[in-house]
Amino acid sequence: MKALSALGLVLFATTASAQESPQQVTPGSVVSAAPATDWRSIDPADLLVMTLSPDSSGKPRVVVIQLLPPPFSQGWVGNIRTLAGQHWWDGTTVYRVVDNWVAQWGDGEDEKADAKPLPEGLKVVPESEYTAPMKCEVYRYEGKVLDERCEPAFNGIEAIDPYVMRGQTGFSSGWPVAFELTPEGNRTWPVHCYGTVGVARDLSPDTGTGAELYAVIGHAPRALDRNIAVVGRVIEGIEHLSTLPRGRGEAGVYDDPALKVPIRSVRLGNDMPEAERPHFEYLASDSASFAQLMNVRANRSDEFYKVPAGGVDVCNVSVPVRRVAAR
Amino acid sequence: MKALSALGLVLFATTASAQESPQQVTPGSVVSAAPATDWRSIDPADLLVMTLSPDSSGKPRVVVIQLLPPPFSQGWVGNIRTLAGQHWWDGTTVYRVVDNWVAQWGDGEDEKADAKPLPEGLKVVPESEYTAPMKCEVYRYEGKVLDERCEPAFNGIEAIDPYVMRGQTGFSSGWPVAFELTPEGNRTWPVHCYGTVGVARDLSPDTGTGAELYAVIGHAPRALDRNIAVVGRVIEGIEHLSTLPRGRGEAGVYDDPALKVPIRSVRLGNDMPEAERPHFEYLASDSASFAQLMNVRANRSDEFYKVPAGGVDVCNVSVPVRRVAAR
Repeated sequence: MKALSALGLVLFATTASAQESPQQVTPGSVVSAAPATDWRSIDPADLLVMTLSPDSSGKPRVVVIQLLPPPFSQGWVGNIRTLAGQHWWDGTTVYRVVDNWVAQWGDGEDEKADAKPLPEGLKVVPESEYTAPMKCEVYRYEGKVLDERCEPAFNGIEAIDPYVMRGQTGFSSGWPVAFELTPEGNRTWPVHCYGTVGVARDLSPDTGTGAELYAVIGHAPRALDRNIAVVGRVIEGIEHLSTLPRGRGEAGVYDDPALKVPIRSVRLGNDMPEAERPHFEYLASDSASFAQLMNVRANRSDEFYKVPAGGVDVCNVSVPVRRVAAR
Repeated sequence: MKALSALGLVLFATTASAQESPQQVTPGSVVSAAPATDWRSIDPADLLVMTLSPDSSGKPRVVVIQLLPPPFSQGWVGNIRTLAGQHWWDGTTVYRVVDNWVAQWGDGEDEKADAKPLPEGLKVVPESEYTAPMKCEVYRYEGKVLDERCEPAFNGIEAIDPYVMRGQTGFSSGWPVAFELTPEGNRTWPVHCYGTVGVARDLSPDTGTGAELYAVIGHAPRALDRNIAVVGRVIEGIEHLSTLPRGRGEAGVYDDPALKVPIRSVRLGNDMPEAERPHFEYLASDSASFAQLMNVRANRSDEFYKVPAGGVDVCNVSVPVRRVAAR
């Protein structure tokens, strides 16, 4: 695990260190070379498989979402498990698509009299759960800091971030996150990147149930961080959302109902027949391969690049995810 | 004009200052309230109007690109004027679309024997022109710095940027840019954001002619900054590129030729009949309205937001552009 100074800021990215590896190291080559031990299985229970109606040429459209692990957003994630378990989304639609912003799905009529009734037992989650506590312990030997371990684990990115004033961005269990030192201690939260899935809501103090969800299909809308619940990310099939026609109604809602994309079903991976379950792995963010990936992303050195930036934002280090055969 | 310390770094964003204005100030309300004097006309000679074949339902698809002003990338911009003047793109296609990356157009066969011949007179632009010199003069009165004026003009964003180690990001004549202090003095360059148009190229020292262009349709690929020529941005019709099917061939090129989108014509605005010319304005980046917009983007204070970030990245302050009637 990588040491991290929870109190200090890493203000400047390191420049490219002397090349330890061949010239043609790319993000792709780092991922290809990662040993099997650097990959982690994603539990099918943490997958949400959304099947849209086929496209105009009859091709299937399946979007696979990975749900966030504890301690992040578990109130909403629990609601989403309930909604999927009750097949609540079946027959709802993707009803809002805004260029360089989001694609949104669910009932879409939740403010109207003919809203689809929600299942019982959904939690009302407080705004305080947009972030989670983070506790760090420093390990010393003869007065020197040897290591610092945080719960949840945190692997910092060696670059500054304009959205985090007294903290840092990095990765926790394969997710892009940030933390900030507050008067109440460290708080950590999942950040909005391309493909992030979040919970649409009304005005505060409403935090949304999880029935109306959106996926980011543009530049990371980081101003939403800590203001809305992040619950997951699209790990396969984002193009079935990002290529949809943009809505021309208010706030990008489809004014033409014919444009709404019917959702055939949304299932948790572990509720699917075993033969149909998809299986995925992600590259562990506390692995040596991931540390090298962060460095290569910040300091592109293959022959296409002449000027390494010396830094990278947390959303440009996409966590590698791959589909694997069932075991 | 806003003062800027070219030597110092603005390390931390300012926090939201005491609300001088009503609670419901949003980016939209700032733009709506901007006086006419804060808007600047875009010369039709700086517009590139690309007409694609109509979509499957017969609707027209027009993409309008604004070309970069001096001192940025003028070698390539000159080539693009030549190519458009000779109607070179007519009959070429959009042939490559990669999710969260780019849509690319032109001949697409430029490395093959049946490449479309290029017009004569295109310049070979050196890599040094990926950036431009920036000269700043400090104005003092009784020893105090009153103002600092740079050429090209620069209005800094009050936030740190992970891709700029010894400099800052900001805006110049309505364009998102960065500068960095180098041993040769300040160098400034246009940055890659959503909608940015750049020049595809082969490996260094090739810098591309401008015949093969791409538009960014995902999270800002800032690692490309200073490594490839930025020549403009899409100001209308980006959805005609961002919603195209993603390519499944090598590097996202369409393996199925039927997916290629025919380009009917690409014209400079001033080469179009006067009745057909589109007219646009942008919000001046050295205006008070724009300064307020940057502040609001960094410190969202309307009732939807509870936690202002205190900072914003240069690509999340989209420069407002609006279509206007011909004068």
